[in-house]
Amino acid sequence: MSRRPRVVVVGAGFGGLEAVRKLAQTDCEVLLLDARNHHLFQPLLYQVATAALSPADIAEPVRAIVRKQKNVQVLLREVTSVDLAGQAIHVGAEEVAYDWLVLAAGARTAYFGNDEWARLAPGLKTIDDAIEIRRRVLMAFEEAELEEDEEARRAKLTFVVIGGGPTGVEMAGALREIAAMSIPEDFRRVDTKTARVYLLEGGPRLLPTMSEEASRRALEQLEGLGVQVRLDTMVTEVDDGCVWVGDDSVAAANIIWAAGVEASDLTRTLGVDIDKQGRIEVEGDCSLPGYSRAFAVGDIAAQVDAATGEPVPGVAQGAIQMGAFVGEIIARELSNASPPPRRPAFRYRNKGEMATIGRARAVADVGGRTFGGVLAWLLWSVVHVAFLVGFRNKLLVMVHWAWQWLVQSRGARLITGGFAPRVADPVDLDEAARSAD
Amino acid sequence: MSRRPRVVVVGAGFGGLEAVRKLAQTDCEVLLLDARNHHLFQPLLYQVATAALSPADIAEPVRAIVRKQKNVQVLLREVTSVDLAGQAIHVGAEEVAYDWLVLAAGARTAYFGNDEWARLAPGLKTIDDAIEIRRRVLMAFEEAELEEDEEARRAKLTFVVIGGGPTGVEMAGALREIAAMSIPEDFRRVDTKTARVYLLEGGPRLLPTMSEEASRRALEQLEGLGVQVRLDTMVTEVDDGCVWVGDDSVAAANIIWAAGVEASDLTRTLGVDIDKQGRIEVEGDCSLPGYSRAFAVGDIAAQVDAATGEPVPGVAQGAIQMGAFVGEIIARELSNASPPPRRPAFRYRNKGEMATIGRARAVADVGGRTFGGVLAWLLWSVVHVAFLVGFRNKLLVMVHWAWQWLVQSRGARLITGGFAPRVADPVDLDEAARSAD
Repeated sequence: MSRRPRVVVVGAGFGGLEAVRKLAQTDCEVLLLDARNHHLFQPLLYQVATAALSPADIAEPVRAIVRKQKNVQVLLREVTSVDLAGQAIHVGAEEVAYDWLVLAAGARTAYFGNDEWARLAPGLKTIDDAIEIRRRVLMAFEEAELEEDEEARRAKLTFVVIGGGPTGVEMAGALREIAAMSIPEDFRRVDTKTARVYLLEGGPRLLPTMSEEASRRALEQLEGLGVQVRLDTMVTEVDDGCVWVGDDSVAAANIIWAAGVEASDLTRTLGVDIDKQGRIEVEGDCSLPGYSRAFAVGDIAAQVDAATGEPVPGVAQGAIQMGAFVGEIIARELSNASPPPRRPAFRYRNKGEMATIGRARAVADVGGRTFGGVLAWLLWSVVHVAFLVGFRNKLLVMVHWAWQWLVQSRGARLITGGFAPRVADPVDLDEAARSAD
Repeated sequence: MSRRPRVVVVGAGFGGLEAVRKLAQTDCEVLLLDARNHHLFQPLLYQVATAALSPADIAEPVRAIVRKQKNVQVLLREVTSVDLAGQAIHVGAEEVAYDWLVLAAGARTAYFGNDEWARLAPGLKTIDDAIEIRRRVLMAFEEAELEEDEEARRAKLTFVVIGGGPTGVEMAGALREIAAMSIPEDFRRVDTKTARVYLLEGGPRLLPTMSEEASRRALEQLEGLGVQVRLDTMVTEVDDGCVWVGDDSVAAANIIWAAGVEASDLTRTLGVDIDKQGRIEVEGDCSLPGYSRAFAVGDIAAQVDAATGEPVPGVAQGAIQMGAFVGEIIARELSNASPPPRRPAFRYRNKGEMATIGRARAVADVGGRTFGGVLAWLLWSVVHVAFLVGFRNKLLVMVHWAWQWLVQSRGARLITGGFAPRVADPVDLDEAARSAD
């Protein structure tokens, strides 16, 4: 019995899943490996970190997603290296041969040579990251309520977000909203409305991949919410509870890193050229130079749009389009007994970019136009719900959002894991008790 | 300025919150302490452990619950001891004086002298417990899918629930449902429908606090689902992955402990009589013997119904009724300048008991009658949604349930924290890959 061709897909993010889908009608076996059991809808991850959604609302089990595509086997395993010449992937000491390979392992938070900042300023790439940031943010308000020392209390109520891309903008807006709108009435001693949120961006404008008009409106709307935006501001040092910009510093119990990502470490095992963000320098057809049956898609690939020569941005639609493109190539060549025709080069179709800033505040670049405010926010909401995987999740997220919009509350304010507040002892609990009206 | 009287309430469970509510119209300051930031709706905790609901769906921030009751201050702190004679509670080295005290610290999982079983057979009392059990259960199926060895695979697909009270019955039913209905199509190699669920009960019948008829019907329905129920079966030893009953043993990757609870350790710091489950032997008015201004309610108190002499069961309605009873006593005596009248003795009003077994399967004892099947299940659903704190949570839980009922899926199948499957290496991933149809 001749074995069916095997396609190994590494990573069940947007790119990997889309490639898998395109292989549904082919006579091959697809092996989909991911270190986690869920596909994560990363564009809404900041909403978990800011207690608006529950983790499971934006995470769908990979097995459930491909349930009906019977030629797919899912394995919960982390691929540790790839032997391109030998056409095999490695999972620790184990090896799996492939006929076709799609690398879609995505990106992780990068500190650009300052890995010691990771503990002090967590990034936001996984569900566990989001739960940790949520815990820290909620705990900061609890600690502030107990804190006697004015300066220490001030620091507890200060949040610094580093990086002015979509994640940074969305986090900063949401943090101000929590402090100013969701929770002020829950506290008796601290006025959470006085919480300060800094957004530090190294470049001259927010949302650098979007239009200048969008950057300007995002800045306006963030400042309207009370976020203190600092442009052209490079962080030089992160201490425990303190961010330095040259000789200036701000004491902040919560520091969140949204300043950069780099490709999965897997790219370093390949022996092919990678750029300084660790991304594979792929060919026009997304294949790896010299290995026509190995492809890379999404955040792991440095690809340019064949039409414009512009780099394809590291966003969901880029990954989805590359995944579909590669899946179609493999499907075509699988079904062709004759030598495959010359492959096309990848062309990126930018369907628009958007970022949300808060309740009824957002910016969107769509079809050459820039929108702001309520209209952009509605557009953002519709697009994000539409792209969520799974009808149940769509429904739940809409219920959450409708509720939040109506009552300005946040439902998922859950602190799990460690719960002991860190405050300078002794705390005068007697005084704290008296703060009840 | 004369200080207002201070009521300290320890624990924001059903009993503590109810006592707090009864003090809303009084001129006192209420200090509510809890080690966690959320009130937990424990009756639905097993649904988080079995991936039907998200943690935040059944956990409401304590601050949000008492937001509008301005005489309450909430502190996220664990009370470590109580000085009854000195009328003060201790939080580590700190001390807070009280005029009135309500102890409502609840219960925790008890292993009755076998504390080393805690790691091997987790109990289900907190959100963190539920997330850990969910992780273990979901991981067991993932590991089974990879496991080459037939015996090891069998063990991965075996679940043992120890204890036949409501939690045990509900867990066992839900585990069989997951294996037999929610996920069979997600796996390619293992037939999850063959998963075995054992429910071990030391006594002669399930749900011993309910009617004999309810016990009989619960047994019937569980067996109908395929759960293997063993009555009069005392566990003698728990090993890593193995449960012993005398010389008999069953290998199981998942062992869940639902066999008992005991009162919070706080009761041991009081110097008053406690029973063998650590519960305070309270007076008829729920006060502590010799301390008329200190009360205990809920799972921390051993109380009897003044009308029947029967012990008040350790369930939500018992705690709620005691909390309300004590809150009313304090409110009355706070507003009376004259010496307080003789206090009434607590009377328990049993509004009914119920336990769910699965989709359209449940038992209920209400008003002297026993119901089973769909009717009991509908009743159970309505009552549990009605008692959930917060309208938003009610709505979300209904959406979850409706969805689950319609498509027989479970939405919250999220593995967080550690994710590496434990399987005997080497695993033949090549063979696993071939299992795709």
